[in-house]
Amino acid sequence: MKEWARQKAARKARIEAGSRHARGKAVAVTDLQDFLEAVLQPGDRVCLEGDNQKQADILAAALADVDPAKIHDLHMVQSGVVLPEHLDIFEKGIARRLDYSYSGPQAARIARMLFGGQIELGAVHTYLELFARYFVDLTPNIALIAAVSADADGNLYTGPNTEDTPTIVEATSFKGGLVVAQVKEIVDKVPRVDIPGDQVHFVVAAGKPFYVEPLFTRDPAAITETQILTAMLAIKGLYAPYGIRRLNHGIGFNTAAIELLLPTYGEKLGLRGKVCTHWALNPHPTLIPAIEAGWVEQVHCFGSEVGMEDYIRARSDIFFTGPDGSLRSNRAFCQTAGLYSCDMFIGSTLQIDLQGHSSTVTASRIAGFGGAPNMGSDPRGRRHPSEPWLKAGAEANPDTPAHMRRGRKLVVQIGETFGDKNVPLFVERLEALTLAEKLKLDLAPIMVYGDDVTHIVTEEGIANLLLCRDRDEREQAIRGVAGYTDIGRGRDAKMVQQLRERGAIRRPEDLGIDPLDADRRLLAARSIKDLMLASGALYAPPPQFRNW
Amino acid sequence: MKEWARQKAARKARIEAGSRHARGKAVAVTDLQDFLEAVLQPGDRVCLEGDNQKQADILAAALADVDPAKIHDLHMVQSGVVLPEHLDIFEKGIARRLDYSYSGPQAARIARMLFGGQIELGAVHTYLELFARYFVDLTPNIALIAAVSADADGNLYTGPNTEDTPTIVEATSFKGGLVVAQVKEIVDKVPRVDIPGDQVHFVVAAGKPFYVEPLFTRDPAAITETQILTAMLAIKGLYAPYGIRRLNHGIGFNTAAIELLLPTYGEKLGLRGKVCTHWALNPHPTLIPAIEAGWVEQVHCFGSEVGMEDYIRARSDIFFTGPDGSLRSNRAFCQTAGLYSCDMFIGSTLQIDLQGHSSTVTASRIAGFGGAPNMGSDPRGRRHPSEPWLKAGAEANPDTPAHMRRGRKLVVQIGETFGDKNVPLFVERLEALTLAEKLKLDLAPIMVYGDDVTHIVTEEGIANLLLCRDRDEREQAIRGVAGYTDIGRGRDAKMVQQLRERGAIRRPEDLGIDPLDADRRLLAARSIKDLMLASGALYAPPPQFRNW
Repeated sequence: MKEWARQKAARKARIEAGSRHARGKAVAVTDLQDFLEAVLQPGDRVCLEGDNQKQADILAAALADVDPAKIHDLHMVQSGVVLPEHLDIFEKGIARRLDYSYSGPQAARIARMLFGGQIELGAVHTYLELFARYFVDLTPNIALIAAVSADADGNLYTGPNTEDTPTIVEATSFKGGLVVAQVKEIVDKVPRVDIPGDQVHFVVAAGKPFYVEPLFTRDPAAITETQILTAMLAIKGLYAPYGIRRLNHGIGFNTAAIELLLPTYGEKLGLRGKVCTHWALNPHPTLIPAIEAGWVEQVHCFGSEVGMEDYIRARSDIFFTGPDGSLRSNRAFCQTAGLYSCDMFIGSTLQIDLQGHSSTVTASRIAGFGGAPNMGSDPRGRRHPSEPWLKAGAEANPDTPAHMRRGRKLVVQIGETFGDKNVPLFVERLEALTLAEKLKLDLAPIMVYGDDVTHIVTEEGIANLLLCRDRDEREQAIRGVAGYTDIGRGRDAKMVQQLRERGAIRRPEDLGIDPLDADRRLLAARSIKDLMLASGALYAPPPQFRNW
Repeated sequence: MKEWARQKAARKARIEAGSRHARGKAVAVTDLQDFLEAVLQPGDRVCLEGDNQKQADILAAALADVDPAKIHDLHMVQSGVVLPEHLDIFEKGIARRLDYSYSGPQAARIARMLFGGQIELGAVHTYLELFARYFVDLTPNIALIAAVSADADGNLYTGPNTEDTPTIVEATSFKGGLVVAQVKEIVDKVPRVDIPGDQVHFVVAAGKPFYVEPLFTRDPAAITETQILTAMLAIKGLYAPYGIRRLNHGIGFNTAAIELLLPTYGEKLGLRGKVCTHWALNPHPTLIPAIEAGWVEQVHCFGSEVGMEDYIRARSDIFFTGPDGSLRSNRAFCQTAGLYSCDMFIGSTLQIDLQGHSSTVTASRIAGFGGAPNMGSDPRGRRHPSEPWLKAGAEANPDTPAHMRRGRKLVVQIGETFGDKNVPLFVERLEALTLAEKLKLDLAPIMVYGDDVTHIVTEEGIANLLLCRDRDEREQAIRGVAGYTDIGRGRDAKMVQQLRERGAIRRPEDLGIDPLDADRRLLAARSIKDLMLASGALYAPPPQFRNW
């Protein structure tokens, strides 16, 4: 007779083993190492919650302390490899295989460990893709997650950083897996139920909040006039003509500049209510002035942002909030929103090649993808029209009959021709390719493929790749906005001039923009303090951003 | 002073108005019409839960009974337009605008009403796309949903048909909207919490279960030998060479035949464990023999299927189930799984044109899309490789260097050259185009676009469109499997022969398949009764499928 409930039996055994180190569902921090050694099995597939923001840090530390003789060869399946412990477990032999999405702060170390063969890499995913696999072939046996508080039944309150938690728990708990949550405290009644207790098997009261990084805060003081110029180009040259109402902004100073120009430059152009009304976006502090000026109707968030709690609570018409008043974020739904209901994704990258492929991977740093591949791709399953989407589709395929012609998502790369430390943005060959060869990867870690990119914006102008009809035109359009980089200097001046005449390249002067007007006085807030003041003192910047 | 919490104030007012017709959260069925007139406002955006399976039927009936003088111009945003009441509300002037996904049983009436201008159409979406818009620009003000039971606090148990409910509730409840649930009964303690009570504002005990349709049950007795032949072609000509492990099957007899051939024909080919191990799929009864024979490792479900409850409960190693033992389905996550982690989507359609575009829309029937556009599209944000995906990518783009080459999702259309009532599957021009012109739609209702389709399987053979290098080859490959339809007879015999030599067309004999072997005795179950027996009497077919 075949057994058909082995997974539930295995979970029951794990619960029994874990219960010997628990009181009811409660595990003491001091018992955590013994507890994990009791519930884990070698070879388990484990999701240790960590994305680009919130971290199950107490559980990560405890996992890094288990005895590798007892627990080894774990297969980690998690959004973020962010804390040192996330890699320590590989060094110690506790974990062996990794499927993940993002590794910003660990980018250099993860690269070294991959080169050294200490990590067996499954794949680097975009968030939604990894979540998808949680339900198909990467379902966790154990989820180690983070919340704000729990009650005795295990009902969890995640507070504003709900993020990945519901997705991880659903995949794990309903497929015979074990869910262990760290919380700050166990309370009589949670402020709201983000995760029902019957999906949660054990709770650890850590006595302190989970670690969370203010990753989406950009200090307006650091925005340069070149970034302001690229923002003006984007607003006047893209947002206005396409009429972009539903969008996502990446993380970075160029898009922060756009956010801060909406109430000033955007207002002057008469765009309020016509662009940037609906967002899939983390609660960026730099969006505060635009919200206060009445530009924004609605924002759905992947996660939250440190210091924005009170502001969000006081602006519930804009944000998704719970009965407790705090944000309800949800990375899976926000990525879905970014994929299927945004007309534009605009973000920055480290390297762009002559075909428009881009990557943040360098020979010594593997930062992972996060949400960019998902939001920076054309969703071919989309079936609802919108003005910007149809216009972009018509530019790309002028010869296809209108009602047979799909639209196109606008996928925009924005940056300065020379980035940090004067490193050129444009390159002949992405370092991602060298890395792929070195690691013998089936697929180079391209963040956004050139055939999905529609526009590239630099201080020299906008390249509209939708209007390029072949590989050569595409290359020259890119060279044509690549400034004084080697790529830019390698342009065919005559072809670039022709592309400009056709509108495939637009210079500031073609758009009636005087680069001298790109002045920091245009920013609706010029400092973190300005943002705080614009919020009516509701925004409470984290200490590292306070200098007053 | 700008008001920033108008939505929450509006909800508070709705709750106060509704409470006058309720006891706590409980509304009596007899008070439902008054209750709805109290909580609704003209122009509200309303999600009346209904997808292709479960229906909030009591709430639908009550909504159709409200006074159009009081409640009118509603904007309905819902997956399914399935019950007569879903259209009655438009006829009565209660609703005006519609954004939806699927309208199978109402396909003819919805077409008439669109022609007659009684419905103002937003767009026809694929499910995940509509869900995405719930978080961006189509957030409901009111959600009228369906569950199995509730407790006094409003905690909901959805049972196996969780489906769209968590997604609808999250979008509505966290954005100041009102959530009203119909349940069979109010109980002391729900068997599991699918929706936490603090997200639910009112509950109606209907005294009977919500309506649910056994939409995914295909009687093996009705499978023809032609369908068996197409199934053999698919298994030997696609599943085996590509090594398809993660997949979705559409609804239909051709794919039901594949499911029933796995334990017989597939076994003979030695494919167990090598193909069809991980599924994003409703719990099709025709999958029972393959599950019992040990082919299937895991199935994640969009919804459930009537009669499969006990079988699923007894097979928890295969399905996602809750602590109560019953299925936890989730349409949003399963569609995400279908998009990003399946290597193949295979389904049927009504019409295919010479470029491979397909549609189920005819001049007089608008059936909607359901999940097909999402799952039948190439997910360009995907970044994890797999053998079938890479192989398909290499066939499509042989000249691109391997690690710069994305893979391709296999999107397969399967059918007989002449379908129901001898209507040809292949057409010069989709009726969807005529409809788009008649209704002045910006976009013709194409289900799957030709550039996403990789293979077409008919009894005449398999057309591999990945191997077609231009429009002409594509057209001839399609003509080459179109049999005796006009399209098939219009083929260029020489070019078809060349395509066959290149493997872009493969005939049964090219695959070593003798059409005479396509015999009903190959089916692992030849009747609904056989399925019931194969399940060890765990599958309880609904009455309309019982004839013994």
